[in-house]
Amino acid sequence: MAHYQVICLSCQAVQDEAAMTSPAVGCTRCGGPLGFHYDYQDVRWDGRFGRTMWRYWRLLPVPDPTQLVTLGEGGTPLLPSRMLTGARVYLKDETRNPTGSHKDRPLSVAINHARRMGATASFVVSTGSTGISNAALAACAGLKSVVLMTQGTPAARVYPMYALGSQVVEVEGAIDDLIEQVIQLCRRHGLYLSSTSRASNPYQAEGNKTIAYELVEELGRAPDWVVVPVGGGGTLAGLLRGFQDLQRLGHVERLPRLVGVVPRDYNALEVAFQRGLTRWEEVLALPYHDCPPSILVKLAHSYPPDGMEALEAVRACGGWFLSVTDEEALAAQEACGRQEGLYVEPSTGAALAGAARLLQGGEVRPEETVVVLVSGSGFRENFVTMERRPLEKRTTTVQKLETVLLAMA
Amino acid sequence: MAHYQVICLSCQAVQDEAAMTSPAVGCTRCGGPLGFHYDYQDVRWDGRFGRTMWRYWRLLPVPDPTQLVTLGEGGTPLLPSRMLTGARVYLKDETRNPTGSHKDRPLSVAINHARRMGATASFVVSTGSTGISNAALAACAGLKSVVLMTQGTPAARVYPMYALGSQVVEVEGAIDDLIEQVIQLCRRHGLYLSSTSRASNPYQAEGNKTIAYELVEELGRAPDWVVVPVGGGGTLAGLLRGFQDLQRLGHVERLPRLVGVVPRDYNALEVAFQRGLTRWEEVLALPYHDCPPSILVKLAHSYPPDGMEALEAVRACGGWFLSVTDEEALAAQEACGRQEGLYVEPSTGAALAGAARLLQGGEVRPEETVVVLVSGSGFRENFVTMERRPLEKRTTTVQKLETVLLAMA
Ligand SMILES: [Zn+2]
Ligand SMILES: [Zn+2]
Repeated sequence: MAHYQVICLSCQAVQDEAAMTSPAVGCTRCGGPLGFHYDYQDVRWDGRFGRTMWRYWRLLPVPDPTQLVTLGEGGTPLLPSRMLTGARVYLKDETRNPTGSHKDRPLSVAINHARRMGATASFVVSTGSTGISNAALAACAGLKSVVLMTQGTPAARVYPMYALGSQVVEVEGAIDDLIEQVIQLCRRHGLYLSSTSRASNPYQAEGNKTIAYELVEELGRAPDWVVVPVGGGGTLAGLLRGFQDLQRLGHVERLPRLVGVVPRDYNALEVAFQRGLTRWEEVLALPYHDCPPSILVKLAHSYPPDGMEALEAVRACGGWFLSVTDEEALAAQEACGRQEGLYVEPSTGAALAGAARLLQGGEVRPEETVVVLVSGSGFRENFVTMERRPLEKRTTTVQKLETVLLAMA
Repeated sequence: MAHYQVICLSCQAVQDEAAMTSPAVGCTRCGGPLGFHYDYQDVRWDGRFGRTMWRYWRLLPVPDPTQLVTLGEGGTPLLPSRMLTGARVYLKDETRNPTGSHKDRPLSVAINHARRMGATASFVVSTGSTGISNAALAACAGLKSVVLMTQGTPAARVYPMYALGSQVVEVEGAIDDLIEQVIQLCRRHGLYLSSTSRASNPYQAEGNKTIAYELVEELGRAPDWVVVPVGGGGTLAGLLRGFQDLQRLGHVERLPRLVGVVPRDYNALEVAFQRGLTRWEEVLALPYHDCPPSILVKLAHSYPPDGMEALEAVRACGGWFLSVTDEEALAAQEACGRQEGLYVEPSTGAALAGAARLLQGGEVRPEETVVVLVSGSGFRENFVTMERRPLEKRTTTVQKLETVLLAMA
């Protein structure tokens, strides 16, 4: 018997995994969103997988770990922070994943499921980290990858997906239409969709739990706070499920408080939290249809697809949401480079700016442990950062070199 | 007593490390190049450092490992290759280092030495990986970093150094003059130089040994072959010293054969090897003063600064050099993305093209183990690859999406 079951999160009906034609299908009884129940008896981490996230396969929807395809996802370092003070602050450096972001975790779960289902291609709607992770992991698994996006994404952002063998398709029209259309088409035709929302693929969502498992192994206990940049909402929700797993197993006593950081102009979740909204329709009624562009492209969702889950997760652990401006995020990104030695993407800067705000707010005690999720590498967003803060350099001659060097020593 | 001594590689005189004013000084007796002798009694790996390279500090010039500054260098995955066949081929994925290249290993040794010497700044001459590693590790250690280069380097390549807090100085004139001048100035004024040549800094050179230690731990034995992209020559030479350490300790029976890969138009070492040249003056007499530009910027040294060491290393283990064209390197880079799921830099493509040649040459037996050093990430060289092989994409409408998706599945 498998160590997990696919269940409907609405009506709890157990699903027949073998009969599933696409990860984008809903409950066969009520159409509701799908999730997983695990057998919590006799859970152990598996030493055969070194420090990678696959040592936690017993709490992932993976029936046979000997058949895994992997680039070595997870096992990322937890580094003490230099720039953030006022508590014991650590950076969970997810830039150390195979393609430089935490998205390699959910996508590796998805691609291994795709392979098991006999899919020949993995589709995603993405202009960012998900598209790159999908391309890399599909290539490694011998699957085709196809990335769909609306028009106007800079070529430098898309290029790595192409270099990793992905077919790139631009679609005329609005992003919300595209997302919905692709889900419907993948359902109807049994295509494998790997986008990182539960409606697209509930399997990928489980990969995010492994960040929580690693944090508890590294710290020997749960942190008191985790600051998470929030885009679609699935990363934060998955993190909480990971801590809840460990609580159920008796590995941690209580849950950390998760603080989600969103862009100032895309702060529907912050407002929903503050107003105590409990239904998604109420969130959709908030005025975020025409938000201005943001440099925080990976977080800038008007209505995050897994927003309701994220909202419930934050409430369940006593956390909250806060929002930061593009300028605050860029300043924190710069400080992180100069003080931590980590070149991060602007969206990670948002989390760092949020963490600084949290630490100044008086809620965190000095002896408490705060972890900031360093979600993605700045090398992939080099062209964006360069535009916003151009390179400064000086020019000299070999004759004047001595004076220049001594002045800089 | 320390577990190592600084010695002169020419006259064997033991140096007084405490009296050293700069890592760019030579032997106080004869001016010769410096290296290290280790105490091989009772060498053990140190579990306190997890999977990072610092578990090998006992064979590195680090007196007190409890004082280390680190971003978690090393501990990179060894992945089975899909694109290279004909033997048991593995890729040592050095893109998983903190800044995405193997240079984080030597630079972390240098920066920790700089800190111990009380330096306030770390200087390098670099337009590539060394400059980025220096910036990141100096930032993490609270040191200033200064990177010197000749004019004309693309801003996109330099930018990460700036983002990591480095001061960027362009110097008018030729690169060979600049390198020599900087060594002289750092010697004279006691400045800390972290460039990756032995004449600049013998400490950094020791960091490369840890790749060999990891390979033997991961494989349970030495590989039969290691294919290494060769720029300055220090990585290859350091790898061999690492295997020699393990041979002396009885961990491996014999040395792997190292095959160095150089660009076709910068193949002085290949020619020197084939002609049996034994003195550096003979290599300098080869006609490489005006080589055409190459996309393999990290390997394109007319006369590699540690070339003599690399030549001797290759001879000591029964290896050789081979050269590949830019086109071969780019084709291998592309294949690596599409088949392995690894987006590597063009210089790593050179190593992969060299490995393919080796495997076709009939020297490698099917049961032998071949490791290819995947030296650096393609995300950092995205702009270069894009120029050479532009993005291909297709455009469609939401109405036609169904047809397009079904055709791609
Ligand atoms: Zn249901
Ligand atoms: Zn000497």
